[in-house]
Amino acid sequence: MTDAGASAIFLIRCADRKGIVARVAGFIHDAGGNILDSNHHTDRLSGTFLMRIEFALDGFGIPRRDIAAAFAPVAKMFGMWYEVHFSDDRPRVGVLVSRQDHCLADLLQRQRRGEMKIEIPVILSNHDACAMWADLFKIPFHVLPVTGDTKREQERQVLGILKQQRVELIVLARYMQILSAGFLAEAGCPVINIHHSFLPAFSGAHPYRQAYERGVKIVGATAHYATEELDEGPIIEQDVIRVGHRDTEEDLIRKGRDLEEIVLARAVRKHVERRVLVYGRKTVVFE
Amino acid sequence: MTDAGASAIFLIRCADRKGIVARVAGFIHDAGGNILDSNHHTDRLSGTFLMRIEFALDGFGIPRRDIAAAFAPVAKMFGMWYEVHFSDDRPRVGVLVSRQDHCLADLLQRQRRGEMKIEIPVILSNHDACAMWADLFKIPFHVLPVTGDTKREQERQVLGILKQQRVELIVLARYMQILSAGFLAEAGCPVINIHHSFLPAFSGAHPYRQAYERGVKIVGATAHYATEELDEGPIIEQDVIRVGHRDTEEDLIRKGRDLEEIVLARAVRKHVERRVLVYGRKTVVFE
Amino acid sequence: MTDAGASAIFLIRCADRKGIVARVAGFIHDAGGNILDSNHHTDRLSGTFLMRIEFALDGFGIPRRDIAAAFAPVAKMFGMWYEVHFSDDRPRVGVLVSRQDHCLADLLQRQRRGEMKIEIPVILSNHDACAMWADLFKIPFHVLPVTGDTKREQERQVLGILKQQRVELIVLARYMQILSAGFLAEAGCPVINIHHSFLPAFSGAHPYRQAYERGVKIVGATAHYATEELDEGPIIEQDVIRVGHRDTEEDLIRKGRDLEEIVLARAVRKHVERRVLVYGRKTVVFE
Amino acid sequence: MTDAGASAIFLIRCADRKGIVARVAGFIHDAGGNILDSNHHTDRLSGTFLMRIEFALDGFGIPRRDIAAAFAPVAKMFGMWYEVHFSDDRPRVGVLVSRQDHCLADLLQRQRRGEMKIEIPVILSNHDACAMWADLFKIPFHVLPVTGDTKREQERQVLGILKQQRVELIVLARYMQILSAGFLAEAGCPVINIHHSFLPAFSGAHPYRQAYERGVKIVGATAHYATEELDEGPIIEQDVIRVGHRDTEEDLIRKGRDLEEIVLARAVRKHVERRVLVYGRKTVVFE
Repeated sequence: MTDAGASAIFLIRCADRKGIVARVAGFIHDAGGNILDSNHHTDRLSGTFLMRIEFALDGFGIPRRDIAAAFAPVAKMFGMWYEVHFSDDRPRVGVLVSRQDHCLADLLQRQRRGEMKIEIPVILSNHDACAMWADLFKIPFHVLPVTGDTKREQERQVLGILKQQRVELIVLARYMQILSAGFLAEAGCPVINIHHSFLPAFSGAHPYRQAYERGVKIVGATAHYATEELDEGPIIEQDVIRVGHRDTEEDLIRKGRDLEEIVLARAVRKHVERRVLVYGRKTVVFE
Repeated sequence: MTDAGASAIFLIRCADRKGIVARVAGFIHDAGGNILDSNHHTDRLSGTFLMRIEFALDGFGIPRRDIAAAFAPVAKMFGMWYEVHFSDDRPRVGVLVSRQDHCLADLLQRQRRGEMKIEIPVILSNHDACAMWADLFKIPFHVLPVTGDTKREQERQVLGILKQQRVELIVLARYMQILSAGFLAEAGCPVINIHHSFLPAFSGAHPYRQAYERGVKIVGATAHYATEELDEGPIIEQDVIRVGHRDTEEDLIRKGRDLEEIVLARAVRKHVERRVLVYGRKTVVFE
Repeated sequence: MTDAGASAIFLIRCADRKGIVARVAGFIHDAGGNILDSNHHTDRLSGTFLMRIEFALDGFGIPRRDIAAAFAPVAKMFGMWYEVHFSDDRPRVGVLVSRQDHCLADLLQRQRRGEMKIEIPVILSNHDACAMWADLFKIPFHVLPVTGDTKREQERQVLGILKQQRVELIVLARYMQILSAGFLAEAGCPVINIHHSFLPAFSGAHPYRQAYERGVKIVGATAHYATEELDEGPIIEQDVIRVGHRDTEEDLIRKGRDLEEIVLARAVRKHVERRVLVYGRKTVVFE
Repeated sequence: MTDAGASAIFLIRCADRKGIVARVAGFIHDAGGNILDSNHHTDRLSGTFLMRIEFALDGFGIPRRDIAAAFAPVAKMFGMWYEVHFSDDRPRVGVLVSRQDHCLADLLQRQRRGEMKIEIPVILSNHDACAMWADLFKIPFHVLPVTGDTKREQERQVLGILKQQRVELIVLARYMQILSAGFLAEAGCPVINIHHSFLPAFSGAHPYRQAYERGVKIVGATAHYATEELDEGPIIEQDVIRVGHRDTEEDLIRKGRDLEEIVLARAVRKHVERRVLVYGRKTVVFE
């Protein structure tokens, strides 16, 4: 892979201390890198320092494969957790869906248009309702039905396929199954879920029905990293739309679909552009 | 009071049946009224019919004071709850505040500019922090401190003053006290509260702190009719604003103030324009 | 066609006069109709009365095909322009596209999901880029290339196909050609266009480039009825999204696509639900 | 002035070159400064580098008054335009108003609440309508009426007072006079204006009337730096609100007031927090 036009991205998290920015910028500069974008945030309450810094590989003196190791001494000095990514990476994303296809169709179209620099090597579902999209975009599609009795076994099969495809991100595009803690632990990569409410309002099942019954004037959608605790993972993105007394539950569902697509797409895009850092129950999203 | 340019507003609620619209429109037409605006909504789930109809008094054959009685036979036919209001009414509004003055200052300015056709004969508070606004707008201001021990007695005093002032609407403009069920029952008029979150998310105390800790990307405010169950009353209006990881709890409070003012003002305006009808836990808001 | 569950919709426009609402409601009531929804608006400046009234056909004494004629005497009395529609109509919509497929793909998906009660009997384009969507949804697709020299002839062919298909609405789903006044006059049905800016800002070509160069903080999209004067037709729907200095022209285009889809879809939906009435350069949109 | 808790802010603009970030960060680090926040943006089209970097003064080895001079050699190396500000500065802001008081009242309340770290040493107006606010907040208030004949002389007087008060920012809080090019040149400090439309739509006079007549579904407000060309200055902030056919021009004015207050307040806040950098006709606003 050529470096022309490509850049490297550091994601860094550590306890806050003096001199981190200067030291990181110095590391890049000393090796001949030109910093293109730099963002950091210090969470005062927890004393956490979080950083995203992007620099051109063109003219940078350290080969890609050696950058992480070369940075290790700096990381050690500050006790940093860090990752190195490259702008021309195309992360492999596994998509899980159930019957509703709008989020899947949306992701596939965005990927095809070049809005999202990802590969989608596999789509998995507990139903065959979305087969048409897999066909259209020529992506392998696995139907793995699930019942209460077969859940453990089905999850094992899903994991097997995802791992075989070396998936780096799992997207739950309205996958209407609750993943077990074991699944999340085994997955070994982040899992992004779209929840069809403005969390923490209306967590759990049937959020649009809950919203309709409560008579809210606004409904929302939330994209978050899936964690063991349902609907409690770090929020990446949210958006809302106004509703009124004329809107039935079906209208809320219809209006919500547009939100779900857009909110999920923004979250995935930010994740794969390496703009999201998690700390505790929260995220930093560097624009 | 002259009728030139004034209009009458009927608010109607009953079980849904055939012919209501035609019968009400016919009543108005037969007495020489010109319908200016007409809205109705049928809640299919509960089978509730809700209506707001406004007609010019100019040329209407029934004197104001007799309209309600004249309409009674129609109402009886359909088992209607109904109210008659007039566009040149200026409802008397009692405002309760604590230390924060932004919602109060906002209401007073809107009232002075003519945005809200209300009288504000009295402001009550458990602190003296808002005295300057009462002075500026020359409105009687009562400070009635409250503690756990004196709550019952203080509420009695507050009610006494509100009743003496013949208040038709009570607005809690960031009044940081929970009103007892007894107070609400005694008040004898609607009470509008502004809650500083996007209900039902973050009900209870310190919603901005809760929002900050949860890491939401949007915060909101909710205006609702106060009921016995805290933060559970029918929602009149909500709005939201985007926040990010850079926003501290103080920033959320600051951004939220603008929302609180606007959301409360919209709710009060819609109420006094007689655009809000309550049914069950919900409202219909006719634009 | 059975009337069970179906309703009729009157759209009415005339000079404002006393008694219109009562007379129309009376006409419906006298024939046994139950009014489901009723909205009207009087534009005070122009003295125009505009109304949408919907009633159940179940129990209505006049057969569908005779309703328009039966209403004619009422219409004559007030000098009304009026239309009668039925809730189970599925208007035939012809879609014109160029190279960009997102609005087309979005409309087709919404139609399939039942969000829009329309038929799409034909898609026309000056390019073949969108053929895949026509294939997927099994809709006849005509490619009619156009140059300055062939514009008149191409428009003639387009009109011929649309008329043969008895199209009742034409949707320009990012059709990058300016239709001649002759085309619009010949079409004999409304034409809805989506313009990729917040009109009247950035009319004409390359609105996102204009927006980028001007440094606006918000971009928008506008759905409007096409008229002879480019970008000047009555606006049906608009929406906006926030942008910042980091957004390049390409980012504006990307963010704008979501707006274009949603704004166009809302406009088409409102049109086919017969919620839009035009008067002068403006619309009334009854929610 | 003590440095405890205070920080310094560099605003930097220059032609883009390699190594700027590292060099600036190095300057700060070498003198013992801890970088709190750092943002930069490169406008690819014009090749402009723009930066905002903030660092704690606590422990910084160079006294405040010498920082600008100490940085000069770095600035010279890159041909930088730069400014040094301090977080505990309270810029002196002169406010100009006409008859409408809402933006003025809003700014004064925000200043009093501590939302805006500014001093307001003087308010000037061509009318006496806002005197009550100057009285309430005990700020000197000058009424300088203006006619076509006296414009030049009035501007001279206004400038005299602003200069006497050593004003560092002029805010036009709905000052309904067009300032001459000469005034802007003489002022010697930035001038922020609030325009009551979503620029570039509806520039010039009576934007709400224009919006009403055009039938737009959304209206907006725009805060921008005033330049010679009316309504063409670099945009700092914009926001919008939805309107409908029921909204008269008066309703647009009413709804617009809330926007004007909020958009102007955000722009002033961002300016005084030194988050805004101008280049060409555009701004960078670092959040």
